[in-house]
Amino acid sequence: MHTDLVAALDIGGTKIAGALVDGDGRILLRAQRPTPAREDGESVMRAVGAVFAQLTASPLWERATAVGIGSAGPVDASAGTVSPVNVPGWRDFPLVERVHRAAGGRPVTLVGDGVAMTAAEHWQGAARGYDNALCLVVSTGVGGGLVLDGRLHPGPTGNAGHIGHISVDLDGDPCPCGSRGCVERIASGPNIARRALDQGWRPGPDGDASAAAVAAAARAGDPVAVASYRRAAQALAAGIAATATLVEIEIAVIGGGVAGAGDVLFTPLRRALRDYATLSFAQRVKVAPALTGTDAGLVGAAAAASLGGKPDEAATYVGRPQG
Amino acid sequence: MHTDLVAALDIGGTKIAGALVDGDGRILLRAQRPTPAREDGESVMRAVGAVFAQLTASPLWERATAVGIGSAGPVDASAGTVSPVNVPGWRDFPLVERVHRAAGGRPVTLVGDGVAMTAAEHWQGAARGYDNALCLVVSTGVGGGLVLDGRLHPGPTGNAGHIGHISVDLDGDPCPCGSRGCVERIASGPNIARRALDQGWRPGPDGDASAAAVAAAARAGDPVAVASYRRAAQALAAGIAATATLVEIEIAVIGGGVAGAGDVLFTPLRRALRDYATLSFAQRVKVAPALTGTDAGLVGAAAAASLGGKPDEAATYVGRPQG
Repeated sequence: MHTDLVAALDIGGTKIAGALVDGDGRILLRAQRPTPAREDGESVMRAVGAVFAQLTASPLWERATAVGIGSAGPVDASAGTVSPVNVPGWRDFPLVERVHRAAGGRPVTLVGDGVAMTAAEHWQGAARGYDNALCLVVSTGVGGGLVLDGRLHPGPTGNAGHIGHISVDLDGDPCPCGSRGCVERIASGPNIARRALDQGWRPGPDGDASAAAVAAAARAGDPVAVASYRRAAQALAAGIAATATLVEIEIAVIGGGVAGAGDVLFTPLRRALRDYATLSFAQRVKVAPALTGTDAGLVGAAAAASLGGKPDEAATYVGRPQG
Repeated sequence: MHTDLVAALDIGGTKIAGALVDGDGRILLRAQRPTPAREDGESVMRAVGAVFAQLTASPLWERATAVGIGSAGPVDASAGTVSPVNVPGWRDFPLVERVHRAAGGRPVTLVGDGVAMTAAEHWQGAARGYDNALCLVVSTGVGGGLVLDGRLHPGPTGNAGHIGHISVDLDGDPCPCGSRGCVERIASGPNIARRALDQGWRPGPDGDASAAAVAAAARAGDPVAVASYRRAAQALAAGIAATATLVEIEIAVIGGGVAGAGDVLFTPLRRALRDYATLSFAQRVKVAPALTGTDAGLVGAAAAASLGGKPDEAATYVGRPQG
């Protein structure tokens, strides 16, 4: 007896990944292309089409009943369009309609990539079993998503939980988004590295000036590297505390490359959270590293699609896999 | 044909108000006592009992099917307890159980006062017709509540939307809550007045050094008074923008005494919101003054109770009045 599958697309500024995912979140088939991010919109769409063609060419395709897309943001789920910051050729690009056609009319669900990762963590990761959770992706940027009342909460346009662009420092440094003192402006990998360099930290002989190199220096005791992570942790704590105070989350799950710093990030983060999450109901919020790996975007897009394309009436996918 | 009524209680640090409210939000009977806020917990409860006794003594009481309580926070709806900051005799006080008994076993719904005000504004005020809204009470403190996906969103403990204690200035002034740079620390009435006095503003011959007096001075062109309101507006804008970015609200409704400043507050607030609400989906957020008046707490408590005491499965009360 064959069960239903979901076709998943994970669209980022670097790569476009596709997969057929079963009701247990297992990937049965995968395809991938680099994103031609500097080319025109139709060229980018051709890359999506090539990935999708690998899925539809499979004998498994006939079992696919729905398509889920997690895309770099901003997205507009209500209009079915995407405008990824790092893909200038796509501005209000009608991705849902194009994929819907390529998928032979199957229903298509679009969410932001942070929301997709959140769906994966709620289904199979560290947010499993929590009714109210924030999941963050701390990497080149800072994204996220929310689970409220036991359900994924994408918001009307599929962007809810976008914690990277809340201001925790209203007089702070200008952020490329146009605001000031955003969480991303303080806590993203490039900003952790920049701050360490500004304060006098210097990379080793290999010239690696990444946030991961700063983390290694922090583990070796470099005070400037430690301070740069501490500042990132403080901004993340203020943002997590704001979310706990606004929507009463029980856990904040942190994934993305910067979370790979481990205790260098998590120890000062847990300490700073005590400073900012002060109200009784907010004090309870826990912090945990993400458990789903590089496939989180695909698995999460499949999970979001299993909600039936109606984010506002989202059924609970946990414990109710497809099929 | 008589329709059902809801008994409502609005419990604050100054007064305890009670009412019987009909399905159109009309108050058919009201009662009120000062809050003996400095006395022990049982004395405060006796004042609640006296208010409640006036409701149960009425021939209308037999039509009451449920009780709604909006209380100064923090509250814990899951435990049925309240711990209002300004009523030290009540710490984890089992208010729901006590009122449940006084109400002859009728179901009792407890929410924070900001959530109650939000229910009133969504039912009958400026948030009516919006599926995603934040309502703020800017007064001695700064509270609030959320409507998400067309429904009141009290959160598991009834405190969600507590925007006054999110930090928008992570290195800012210490807040009595234990955090730093909270919206309330910058934008509450007493802080607007304090900042104006600190910067050299002086009250007139009547000695009135309230935020309302600062607003009058700002309207008359006093630059220090204008600047104090502008700073409050900036903090409120950062908080509203954070909420729009996290949960995609369409409107922020502002009530409470400080909202009475009118354009002195709303003009710089709308301007600052353009600075902080920068992502495409967040830019759409509007700001409006609250429409419900001093009865908002009672009407909102009744609305919250009409949701059936199950905040997480809240039905929509708009257009579905009791009876």
